[in-house]
Amino acid sequence: MLNADGRVRTLALAGGVGGAKLALGLAHCLPPGELVIVVNTADDEEFHGLHIAPDLDTMMYTLAGLANPDTGWGLQGDTFAALEMLRRYGADTWFNLGDRDLATHIRRTQLLGAGATLAEVTGQLCQALGIEQRIVPMTNDAVRTLLDTDDGTLTMQQYFVQRRAQPRVHAVRYAGADAAAPSPEFAAALEAAERLVVCPSNPILSVQPILAVGEVRQRIAEFGGPRIIVSPIVGDDAVSGPAGKLMGELGQEVSVAGLACQYADVGDILVIDYRDALQMERVAAAGLRPAPANAIMRTLDDKIALAREILALSR
Amino acid sequence: MLNADGRVRTLALAGGVGGAKLALGLAHCLPPGELVIVVNTADDEEFHGLHIAPDLDTMMYTLAGLANPDTGWGLQGDTFAALEMLRRYGADTWFNLGDRDLATHIRRTQLLGAGATLAEVTGQLCQALGIEQRIVPMTNDAVRTLLDTDDGTLTMQQYFVQRRAQPRVHAVRYAGADAAAPSPEFAAALEAAERLVVCPSNPILSVQPILAVGEVRQRIAEFGGPRIIVSPIVGDDAVSGPAGKLMGELGQEVSVAGLACQYADVGDILVIDYRDALQMERVAAAGLRPAPANAIMRTLDDKIALAREILALSR
Repeated sequence: MLNADGRVRTLALAGGVGGAKLALGLAHCLPPGELVIVVNTADDEEFHGLHIAPDLDTMMYTLAGLANPDTGWGLQGDTFAALEMLRRYGADTWFNLGDRDLATHIRRTQLLGAGATLAEVTGQLCQALGIEQRIVPMTNDAVRTLLDTDDGTLTMQQYFVQRRAQPRVHAVRYAGADAAAPSPEFAAALEAAERLVVCPSNPILSVQPILAVGEVRQRIAEFGGPRIIVSPIVGDDAVSGPAGKLMGELGQEVSVAGLACQYADVGDILVIDYRDALQMERVAAAGLRPAPANAIMRTLDDKIALAREILALSR
Repeated sequence: MLNADGRVRTLALAGGVGGAKLALGLAHCLPPGELVIVVNTADDEEFHGLHIAPDLDTMMYTLAGLANPDTGWGLQGDTFAALEMLRRYGADTWFNLGDRDLATHIRRTQLLGAGATLAEVTGQLCQALGIEQRIVPMTNDAVRTLLDTDDGTLTMQQYFVQRRAQPRVHAVRYAGADAAAPSPEFAAALEAAERLVVCPSNPILSVQPILAVGEVRQRIAEFGGPRIIVSPIVGDDAVSGPAGKLMGELGQEVSVAGLACQYADVGDILVIDYRDALQMERVAAAGLRPAPANAIMRTLDDKIALAREILALSR
């Protein structure tokens, strides 16, 4: 799967839906062997005894062309017969799991139980789905995002899915991150890649957990090639999801300038939407080179066009 | 769930489809608290990391009115989306598992993993499905039927489902049975019951595994009340399934007389079909009192009628 000269070239960091959109664009622009996509796993959670990895699954399903475009999670056309029966058995079923989606979690849990690492399992699942790019978990170790909120300490899924991101958040922790090691594939890509792209994912819930793993933040601070951050913030809110609300509650300015401050040590270029062009000077003052583009990806063409611009920025 | 005077009254031993038919008849004739159904678990097997208990499930689904009458296994109207996806992931999918059926196995595996016994889990699942009778696994320990065949040593599901009972069988073992203990609920019912009914299940693959658990055979030999065996053999073959073929390959006579020899120490009465009335003398010579009846249960009325006759025999 490596390029002919063994170089990875592009390393992308991503969370869920927004990250998968840009990753799909990059996958259309690059030979498969030149792209490694490292995905947040701090949202992983166990339901019904099964290991669920929502961001890995969103990425896999998106690149395999199987994602449900209406929900942003799960498989298009999936059914929910098993979940209905689990509910009848008294199981907690607030986390939606389709029947075909369940097969992913059953298979993953079985292979993990047999001793495979999460990276190995992910590789197997991707191969079975015909995905040529490498999708890699940030770590094979257990890292869990925990949110201290008005409703107590919540996991990411409890906060985001069960409580629809309603509770006010006071602090966010990435339990286990200090002691975790990047997955070997992630570590190798950090060495080999010529370009780093941070996809437009939630900075607090998707990107920071990746940066928090072991020495990753330090290694990205020292990364040799261009590091391009793509803003998930347009105007004064996130394109989708709770990133804006969360940044505000944690005392961060909800704007591309605010975002620039968070990423100053790990980025060179901040791709912002054209409508934020007035903030270019403030982004530059924070230490990042602003690059305006159409940052809202509605169609596949949008995704490919944004990916092309990003790749052009780092040639 | 106990009767007002705390007595169990009827203890039924059963395997899969044939056993579930008579158990349903008994359930229609007895107050729920007076019936305990002990089910073979030597057919249990792990698929996709999940604990599958085919005979327990057939019994549960039958008493809950959810069984698929066409196949004899699984849930009526179930779908197979997850299995199709598991196949795509390269999993071995010769054992059919419907989506709603999978929920049973997922829930069971989760509860077992959390430390509950198989009997406790079965009680929870039955309660959720509204089953008032007690369905009890023969043991909470691992017992596995192993068949030595022309195709090597096979588990029950490998033999029966994967190879459609085709290989010639040389010997059958119940691995783990000696060291296993009857489940506490089974042991209690053996003490308390006033009547024992052995349902028309495969003698080698369903009933012998139950008798092989710990001291069960000895305790049934010493059982105080009437012990009624219902023949799964009519004429020179089983009503359904491979019992006839298997008895023949193991050198047993395939007839109600041959069956009587197998059960002489644990039965008092052998219920046979009317068409085997000519063998009554040979059954009696083997030490069991023959009781002719309509032993083929096609309709619910057939099941109830046979259950009534059995109960009348032991009053």
